[in-house]
Amino acid sequence: MSSAKNIVSHTAPPNPKELIGRERKPGDGFPLLMNQFLEGKKKSAQILRLLKSLERDPILAANFNDYEVTKEQQRELTALRINRMARYIESESIEDFNRRLNLVTVYDPSTGIRISVNLGLYINCIKGNGTDEQYKYWCIDKQAGHLNQLYGCFGMTELGHGSNVAGCETTATFDPETDEFIIDTPHIGATKWWIGGAAHSATHSSIYARLVVNGKDYGVKTFVVPLRDSNHELLPGVSIGDIGSKMGREGVDNGWIQFSDVRIPRFFMLQKFCKVSREGKVTLPPLEQLSYISLLGGRVTMATDSYRAAARFTTIAIRYGVGRKQFPPNLGLDGVGDEVQLMDYPLHQRRLFPYLALAYAMGLGTNRLENQHNAILVDLDKAVAKKNTNAIKSAINETKSLFIDSGSLKSTTTWLAADCITECRQTCGGHGYSAYSGFGKAYDDWVVQCTWEGDNNVLAMSVGKTLIRNVQEVLDKGKKIGGSVSFLSNARQYINNDLILREGDQENPDKILQALEVLIVRISSKASEALKSSATWDDVSPQRVLLSKLRCHHYLLQSFIENLREAASELQPDLNTLIRLYANTFILEAFSSEFLIYGVIDAKTKNILSSEYIPKLCLDLRPRAITLTDSFQQSDMILNSAIGKYNGDIYENYFNVVKDQNPPIKTKAFYSESMEAMLSRPSLEDRDRQEKTESAQEILTVPFPKRGDDDEDDDDDDDDDE
Amino acid sequence: MSSAKNIVSHTAPPNPKELIGRERKPGDGFPLLMNQFLEGKKKSAQILRLLKSLERDPILAANFNDYEVTKEQQRELTALRINRMARYIESESIEDFNRRLNLVTVYDPSTGIRISVNLGLYINCIKGNGTDEQYKYWCIDKQAGHLNQLYGCFGMTELGHGSNVAGCETTATFDPETDEFIIDTPHIGATKWWIGGAAHSATHSSIYARLVVNGKDYGVKTFVVPLRDSNHELLPGVSIGDIGSKMGREGVDNGWIQFSDVRIPRFFMLQKFCKVSREGKVTLPPLEQLSYISLLGGRVTMATDSYRAAARFTTIAIRYGVGRKQFPPNLGLDGVGDEVQLMDYPLHQRRLFPYLALAYAMGLGTNRLENQHNAILVDLDKAVAKKNTNAIKSAINETKSLFIDSGSLKSTTTWLAADCITECRQTCGGHGYSAYSGFGKAYDDWVVQCTWEGDNNVLAMSVGKTLIRNVQEVLDKGKKIGGSVSFLSNARQYINNDLILREGDQENPDKILQALEVLIVRISSKASEALKSSATWDDVSPQRVLLSKLRCHHYLLQSFIENLREAASELQPDLNTLIRLYANTFILEAFSSEFLIYGVIDAKTKNILSSEYIPKLCLDLRPRAITLTDSFQQSDMILNSAIGKYNGDIYENYFNVVKDQNPPIKTKAFYSESMEAMLSRPSLEDRDRQEKTESAQEILTVPFPKRGDDDEDDDDDDDDDE
Repeated sequence: MSSAKNIVSHTAPPNPKELIGRERKPGDGFPLLMNQFLEGKKKSAQILRLLKSLERDPILAANFNDYEVTKEQQRELTALRINRMARYIESESIEDFNRRLNLVTVYDPSTGIRISVNLGLYINCIKGNGTDEQYKYWCIDKQAGHLNQLYGCFGMTELGHGSNVAGCETTATFDPETDEFIIDTPHIGATKWWIGGAAHSATHSSIYARLVVNGKDYGVKTFVVPLRDSNHELLPGVSIGDIGSKMGREGVDNGWIQFSDVRIPRFFMLQKFCKVSREGKVTLPPLEQLSYISLLGGRVTMATDSYRAAARFTTIAIRYGVGRKQFPPNLGLDGVGDEVQLMDYPLHQRRLFPYLALAYAMGLGTNRLENQHNAILVDLDKAVAKKNTNAIKSAINETKSLFIDSGSLKSTTTWLAADCITECRQTCGGHGYSAYSGFGKAYDDWVVQCTWEGDNNVLAMSVGKTLIRNVQEVLDKGKKIGGSVSFLSNARQYINNDLILREGDQENPDKILQALEVLIVRISSKASEALKSSATWDDVSPQRVLLSKLRCHHYLLQSFIENLREAASELQPDLNTLIRLYANTFILEAFSSEFLIYGVIDAKTKNILSSEYIPKLCLDLRPRAITLTDSFQQSDMILNSAIGKYNGDIYENYFNVVKDQNPPIKTKAFYSESMEAMLSRPSLEDRDRQEKTESAQEILTVPFPKRGDDDEDDDDDDDDDE
Repeated sequence: MSSAKNIVSHTAPPNPKELIGRERKPGDGFPLLMNQFLEGKKKSAQILRLLKSLERDPILAANFNDYEVTKEQQRELTALRINRMARYIESESIEDFNRRLNLVTVYDPSTGIRISVNLGLYINCIKGNGTDEQYKYWCIDKQAGHLNQLYGCFGMTELGHGSNVAGCETTATFDPETDEFIIDTPHIGATKWWIGGAAHSATHSSIYARLVVNGKDYGVKTFVVPLRDSNHELLPGVSIGDIGSKMGREGVDNGWIQFSDVRIPRFFMLQKFCKVSREGKVTLPPLEQLSYISLLGGRVTMATDSYRAAARFTTIAIRYGVGRKQFPPNLGLDGVGDEVQLMDYPLHQRRLFPYLALAYAMGLGTNRLENQHNAILVDLDKAVAKKNTNAIKSAINETKSLFIDSGSLKSTTTWLAADCITECRQTCGGHGYSAYSGFGKAYDDWVVQCTWEGDNNVLAMSVGKTLIRNVQEVLDKGKKIGGSVSFLSNARQYINNDLILREGDQENPDKILQALEVLIVRISSKASEALKSSATWDDVSPQRVLLSKLRCHHYLLQSFIENLREAASELQPDLNTLIRLYANTFILEAFSSEFLIYGVIDAKTKNILSSEYIPKLCLDLRPRAITLTDSFQQSDMILNSAIGKYNGDIYENYFNVVKDQNPPIKTKAFYSESMEAMLSRPSLEDRDRQEKTESAQEILTVPFPKRGDDDEDDDDDDDDDE
């Protein structure tokens, strides 16, 4: 009866491949050119080269099986991938290896972080807090830097102490008799917790513990504490366990550690700054704040990760939106007729294109942050090597800027990336919920970024505090602010009630940047007034978080504006639309309530940008959607999404993955027998052994004695008597 | 060296149990009284009785192992629980069973939905679309309603068709020769997809397919199509596969189905409305819209689910916030000193208490929705039974109200519940990321609620469209609007530019309700103007979604106000704070930009409510936080969270769960050998077989011929010549 196919009016199968394909020009050089603009020419080439190597690597390449593995399998797979990565670290440049690690982290954050805990946190902690000799001994000679011999973990967080590192309660007590420190966990709250790699991988740990000498508490310092011997057996006094299942990143063997009077030689204390002599004399450092620099690298990387996550998921969702059709244009009751591409709906554009624009803003902004971070490390190393006090001071000032910049970018972009994954998933409807579309695992793996290495709210509050203090100093003392927030120096002229953004100005990114600066100043100034009356810093914490977000957007918009000037002319039209869409949605509209209240923009302008300007920008972007996501140069391997592949053949790709991963030839579940038994179970009466039936009632009911019955009984008795 | 414990100043272990305990009064009757207010006295007692039964049930009780299971294990566990639930459905009242199912769904949505697909979707589809005889045959006599003999699934969605049900492409072609329908999947896009229970459980399916008779397409109708025989073997022509891994709800065996010319008797078509005679004469129904009522039950339930999710996770997060301490009040560089309870920080209150208030609002509002739904079903059944046309019309009008109410509540509350789980998780810091805190699985299981049974955006757009149309009709024709949105009838007087909410009014819920009504009218009117000029309905879709959200909050606030009047006097003070906090945060502040732009409130009032009034309400709630979450009466079993138990012993509870689930005696991972091999791998040179060493270079380098060498060669040649 194949004739049925010819009866109904719409039996042609959907053809998403054609829909997507026709939005590409054959041989178009634009995506590569745009990618070179986004990443920088050199980095762009490096990434493409590394992606080629990764997608061919039998162990490292992402695949759909990554969405099937159990926790145990994921742990094992991660170890396999670490082993494979260890081969590359021995044979390629450190720049290539770090970029490779960065790319692997996009699709396999468990492998990424399990390596980064060793190479990033453990080794950076030793480099940042130890002497040159200590670094050389633990990291170079012992080859920890090559993932060989030693495997380090980072013992900072405790069960009862996360953000307040200075409140850690593990103790390191100096024993002058033996020239040792005694590392001890005084109670359950001081148990080291969440320690990545501790459960099964790590041989050593850099531990944050309170230095206690001669009864005096000198605060938290760092120590190298071995956990396992060369046979990988736990050392005596060291108790370690797996902290078990998590929301995501199940490939990481996070553990808990308790120390019971574990002795380490004095020279295991990291002594670049604080030193303890043989006699127990403690020298405290003048430059101890430098020891925290080692934590900044992680924050910078997380901002970059946010860009890559946004690029990955906008690519998937926009391809799906172009290939998928839904509802005929004029929906009749029958719902029949040629349906409309999702991406042609204004609401769909409104949901996705701002994230596309945001991804571009984050790409350029985090590029700048990465370069800024690298430059500071170089400056600092040089200054310290030359013992040049002025140069060190200047590097410390740069570091302070980096604290604000990386703090506001890490917190804001990781939140935005989580929102981006969520919104992109929802635009893919039910198929976004399939593991094979990639959203679910990515989200679960992602969201810890909002919590660790500086909880987003705690980081944001600290950024906001600095901004308010800076504005206070400008207003009160006319101080000049340097570094990346030098615009705060204009606070006095921004503080009045002048309207900054008028109708038409929403088209001008420079004007929006200025509006943002004015808003930051006005909010800071208002908070500062409150602080001068009765408010505490805690009372203004919502404003502090808000300021940190605004500061991040200032950084991103400023970077975008600056980069735009250098862009090739053929890129300018699209970039001009993108920067305007980004600034109008994620800045002007997202914070419109504040812009209105602080008199920076007026209601009319807000209305126009929301109801007219943004929809117009979306419409302008519509024909460029595929090209602008192709420009992220996300290969199918790194996307690892059944519904987001380059060829656009959404339904065939998806169906094939589903069938490959779940061969339909297995028509019954392994537990089918028990289910079938349920469905053919006997009636309730039978299963109750007919004990509640009428016939049972007759048998089991002792008849109430009636007068007549009594007589009969009497008769029986009489009989018995006979 | 236990002496170390006595050296540092702060070695007393944390005591969250005491912190939480001191916020409870012994023998306090308040929580139960409040619960009776929230749920209604009868339902409150019913829930507590059922929770007792569930927590003692060896199979149904939630436990921490639920966070460890693999997909396969979860599938099996779900089947076990369905089997167990089947015993209750045979032996308790339908009201008790439905409530039991509702409660199980809170902590095990996989089991919940796998049962609901059969009892809710499949059976309701037959009840709603089939004749009484058909319902009796398939559901009563065959015992599908008792999870016996038959197991039904709901074959609506297709790979290429989700929201546009009317666009389904599966065909049901009438064959007059044999008096059968031929069910066929014409192409990949028409493959039934996401069908819960299809992969392994279902024996039958209610299929949405286009009725084709004599070459004519009559649109989508419903048919009962058997999938498996009584031996649970797939029927010929039926192809089914597992759609595999998902973001969550891994216990559900969602499947895909393709039909290849499958024949069913004509009497398998559900014919309450549309009928096909033996001769192929099609009678189309006047009341077909009634057939969609069966979908409303699911939406109502999802709104209630949202309340229960919010109650569950605010309980966990607030208990943690009260028991957890962080940072000393005046943070010195050393970070030492008695730390502050998280819940005492204004920002922490600002993050959690609005959700606490929202949970109350959702509890009361969804109660009303549930009652409204039940009443309509009763009215409709009565009217249909009596064939009373007026009563049927009136029931249809009520149903239209319910479409708006359930659509706006389902979409808005499921989104809010997702936000609530996310924010609650983040306030628990790293520990919120542990699977044992309960957030991760709950979120992953939850978010599909935003997509299925009416995608939230699609539903919201439909609600918004109705609101705009209603306002249009009031403004243009002076129409009176009835039902739950009767306030729209005031549109003409609301449409001016009068300021509604002045300083001080933010304390008055009635005033806020009015402000909300005015905002809804003004936004609708503006959209309607746009529609009269050049805009299409699609152009105003962002406004339609916005209106739907506002309408949901109107429903919730109105219910809260009405219920508050009936509340016992001892409950009034807390409820008065909660209603104000809910209305000021989730209504006035969340939509402040719109309130400002449409001139409903002024900047000054907005400023006061954000910077003064809301913080004050939070402070008022602070001492009541534990009592008001205890009032949700969430047992430890239903919370199933290591950090949220009633006894408040957060760290001990959590550590015990971690050790129970991951016994520390296993000190090495099962794959440890391969990892150890990596760490003791020989040097790169050795592994390269020394092939790249200098000595290899000497051996392998062919010396370049030099003049002297040539001579020697010549000599050799000479020799040869000899």
